[in-house]
Amino acid sequence: MDPLKVALLGCGSVGTQVARLLSTHAEELAQRVGAPLELTGIAVRTLEADRGPDIDPSLLTTDAPELVKRADLVIELIGGIEPARTLILQALAGGASVVTGNKALLAEHGPQLYEAAERGGVELYYEAAVAGAIPLLRPIRESLAGDRVRRVLGIVNGTTNYVLDKMDTAGLDFSAAVAQAQSLGYAEADPTADVEGYDAAAKAAILASLAFHTRVHAADVHREGITQVSAGDVASAKQIGAVVKLLAICERTVAADGAEGVSVRVHPAMIPASHPLASVRGAFNAVFVEAEAAGELMFYGQGAGGLPTASAVLGDLVSAARNRVGGSRGPGESTYAQLPLRPMGEVITRYHISLDVADRPGVLASVAKVIAEHGVSIETVRQQQIESEVGEGRASLVVVTHAATEAALEATVSALAGLEIVTAVVGVMRVEGED
Amino acid sequence: MDPLKVALLGCGSVGTQVARLLSTHAEELAQRVGAPLELTGIAVRTLEADRGPDIDPSLLTTDAPELVKRADLVIELIGGIEPARTLILQALAGGASVVTGNKALLAEHGPQLYEAAERGGVELYYEAAVAGAIPLLRPIRESLAGDRVRRVLGIVNGTTNYVLDKMDTAGLDFSAAVAQAQSLGYAEADPTADVEGYDAAAKAAILASLAFHTRVHAADVHREGITQVSAGDVASAKQIGAVVKLLAICERTVAADGAEGVSVRVHPAMIPASHPLASVRGAFNAVFVEAEAAGELMFYGQGAGGLPTASAVLGDLVSAARNRVGGSRGPGESTYAQLPLRPMGEVITRYHISLDVADRPGVLASVAKVIAEHGVSIETVRQQQIESEVGEGRASLVVVTHAATEAALEATVSALAGLEIVTAVVGVMRVEGED
Repeated sequence: MDPLKVALLGCGSVGTQVARLLSTHAEELAQRVGAPLELTGIAVRTLEADRGPDIDPSLLTTDAPELVKRADLVIELIGGIEPARTLILQALAGGASVVTGNKALLAEHGPQLYEAAERGGVELYYEAAVAGAIPLLRPIRESLAGDRVRRVLGIVNGTTNYVLDKMDTAGLDFSAAVAQAQSLGYAEADPTADVEGYDAAAKAAILASLAFHTRVHAADVHREGITQVSAGDVASAKQIGAVVKLLAICERTVAADGAEGVSVRVHPAMIPASHPLASVRGAFNAVFVEAEAAGELMFYGQGAGGLPTASAVLGDLVSAARNRVGGSRGPGESTYAQLPLRPMGEVITRYHISLDVADRPGVLASVAKVIAEHGVSIETVRQQQIESEVGEGRASLVVVTHAATEAALEATVSALAGLEIVTAVVGVMRVEGED
Repeated sequence: MDPLKVALLGCGSVGTQVARLLSTHAEELAQRVGAPLELTGIAVRTLEADRGPDIDPSLLTTDAPELVKRADLVIELIGGIEPARTLILQALAGGASVVTGNKALLAEHGPQLYEAAERGGVELYYEAAVAGAIPLLRPIRESLAGDRVRRVLGIVNGTTNYVLDKMDTAGLDFSAAVAQAQSLGYAEADPTADVEGYDAAAKAAILASLAFHTRVHAADVHREGITQVSAGDVASAKQIGAVVKLLAICERTVAADGAEGVSVRVHPAMIPASHPLASVRGAFNAVFVEAEAAGELMFYGQGAGGLPTASAVLGDLVSAARNRVGGSRGPGESTYAQLPLRPMGEVITRYHISLDVADRPGVLASVAKVIAEHGVSIETVRQQQIESEVGEGRASLVVVTHAATEAALEATVSALAGLEIVTAVVGVMRVEGED
């Protein structure tokens, strides 16, 4: 067989490993594909940078469009929207299949890319975009193709998991934990995309699209980051036998009238220490998938890093190349269900509410009354006197609710904040992973 | 599109769920496949049995060959070698793709089935054969296609995991735990296939074949069941912070001269309580996969049961059907590597050796000397006096070794057993999951 021409766009930590493995594993890859894979060039922004011994300098070029023009397969690892989008569209229109790890682009412009792939009669793969090395998108798209996914619950951002883990195990506060993550290379100099949940939201949109056969964009995802998570929240979690994690949650919902919908959200939450996701430490990722027939499944592994992510890229590359050799195509975009996106207010969740209250008779009764008036029921309540030097005694009151709608819970907190006996709402966090 | 004709062979717990889901999810399945799936018949041994409300009696037939003749897709859930093999070969030769969960058949005659699929220009899928609902074979075959698998370490038999779990947590002995598993339907009336490791060995052969691109038969697998695991072994494991699990271990080995090989084994082993596989309880399955680039991955879920297994069957069915509609074919058998199978004696492992010894000076020195003479080094040793009413004092000596070859460790145990001061070799078990 003639070799398949592979163009690599981008030469960061993942791209470097992809180039290296394409060379060191060339023989095995050829066996698996049924034809050799020839790396014809690596598009970079500047030729000057030192790229180490794994990169053959003669492959480097700054002319990405020209490289794409001659390729059978294009690997896009530039990241961001432009020029990645234009180059991918050019590749697909020109008859090259594309492998990308670009979650932001997919969550924003996925449908446009899929349409271009369809028109070009080629393929679009992006396993590396979510949860790095973990085979996750292919299992959801193909292995569960005969099942109905109910829920995806995952830790899909290693940076925030590292930060929360350090706050929990080393007692660091948020800023110190972020600084440590930065010094170890787990967080960027500007950590916004991670700590504000943008990265996880893009991944959640991709997961929800595949799981529910419905187009979901990053903007459809309710997003809260971890910048507001305090040492007190982490300590409160510990007191109820839980840990704080940034979760991506994609759910198929059924309204009272039977109408189906989809809700997608990213926010910090307390999950029980006994939950398998609770023991996911450091920069690892893990995703729970709950399907109607399969039940609960979990996928665990490294969510980032040049080498692990390169594994996912090459897996996709082999699939695309093999299909090219065999003249076939894998499944394209599937959006037949096109379920409506449900607003955050309708989401069913539970709240952990921590209040400072006046320490006098009847306080608990007043609080309980407000909660009941909102149709919310209480799972546990814990009251503790706070030492104070002067004035009236104060107490700490922690309420964990049973499941209710986000709207009802939010209204409950507002009403509690308005009570004269409530000195401060110290913290509010959702509780997930059981009921 | 014309409907695709689906023949179902076998109507046990998995078959019943497959038939039900084909009917209740018909519309979604048609969307995902691109054509309706029509269940044209269910082959059973007898028409008399009551099969509940999910099975349309008019679909039942005892003439499996006739049913296969008219099918585009055949689902084989009869199990065992014959008549399953003949029917599958007939289907493949006749141009029907086959989905099966028959691990025994695949581990015994996989290459013959693959060849028939190749000749017929059709596909053979069997995700349900290993670890039930867990998407595992497809990720190994496709997602890791650009990577090199080093090791697969898994709990792939729910029955034995349930039995060992009960021995650990409820303090039951082996027979009582098996009886309990039987009463709950987790173990067959004749539990031999599970407790002697035959089921796990067949699965290990399938996993190793896919992971290492090498033909591995059930007979190539070193197999030890759990019938010899005693309450004492379970207690000993606890004392070193470990639990006993029946593990399937598939490894790529590299000899001193650089020659690569494959070793595949199934046996009980102690693994550290901190290892993610240690917390796999009851009848659940979990499989660790270690790949060169991806690092450590874990897949977790229900390993058996009618409904979960039906999810895996339908996932395969959708793939096969979709490829049929698109005129394409997924990857066939991959055996290009054909690495030699290494004998058990060359396997690198660790031993937990529990001895009864005479309680007198110099005993530990003698034992240590014998171990050192075999080139084995000791990680920990623990000596404890045993209460005895008469005669010379006795002690219990527990040695955990560092990694060495199975042959060296076995020879060490033989030599220890021959020592005059060793009253009895109380237990020997391998230790896995670290070093």
